[in-house]
Amino acid sequence: MLTKEGSWINECQTLLQRLEIQGMSDNQLSQFRQSIDNIDAALIHMLAERFRITKAVGRYKAEVGMAPADPDREQEQIKRLRKLAEEAGLDPEFSEKFLRFVIDEVIHHHERIAEEPR
Amino acid sequence: MLTKEGSWINECQTLLQRLEIQGMSDNQLSQFRQSIDNIDAALIHMLAERFRITKAVGRYKAEVGMAPADPDREQEQIKRLRKLAEEAGLDPEFSEKFLRFVIDEVIHHHERIAEEPR
Repeated sequence: MLTKEGSWINECQTLLQRLEIQGMSDNQLSQFRQSIDNIDAALIHMLAERFRITKAVGRYKAEVGMAPADPDREQEQIKRLRKLAEEAGLDPEFSEKFLRFVIDEVIHHHERIAEEPR
Repeated sequence: MLTKEGSWINECQTLLQRLEIQGMSDNQLSQFRQSIDNIDAALIHMLAERFRITKAVGRYKAEVGMAPADPDREQEQIKRLRKLAEEAGLDPEFSEKFLRFVIDEVIHHHERIAEEPR
């Protein structure tokens, strides 16, 4: 049987172990979040560049009188991205939702460009 | 005044010029689309990696009993991404909508992980 002092030391050790494990886990969570933040910065810059290009496409389409949306091209893009998503271990449904989300914004830009007075 | 033959040659030249301009523009559109396709492939792979990390975060949160959503962390992320978007020439409103779109999917994953039998 432990003395009162021995029991107190044991409790302290258990508490320290818990704090250490918690500290390690918090450190792990912080590591994960740093990776997420780096990926998000890359995503934002990629999206910025994508919209720079699609805005140029929008100006071209408005000049030659092409429709802002192009359903055939969109179907090709969806098919290709679903395949890429599967290969990369990303849910293909999500990749399609994502492309739709981005294309909706692009078409919105194209419509605004087409409406601008020339 | 042009002969009938001269007028026909003129018409042919105009048509050829138009086809050339159209060809150049179609080539330009095709160049733009190739850039978009490359960026989309990069985006899909970045998103795949992001979800690999957030799934690990989800497992960790479920283990230690943390809530799937973290409003304080989300507010920090939104603030940071809006700033990055502004610097990159991307609409900050869109960057916030985009992060919300991705986080909604992440929380959906976390909830599924938390519901899994242990």
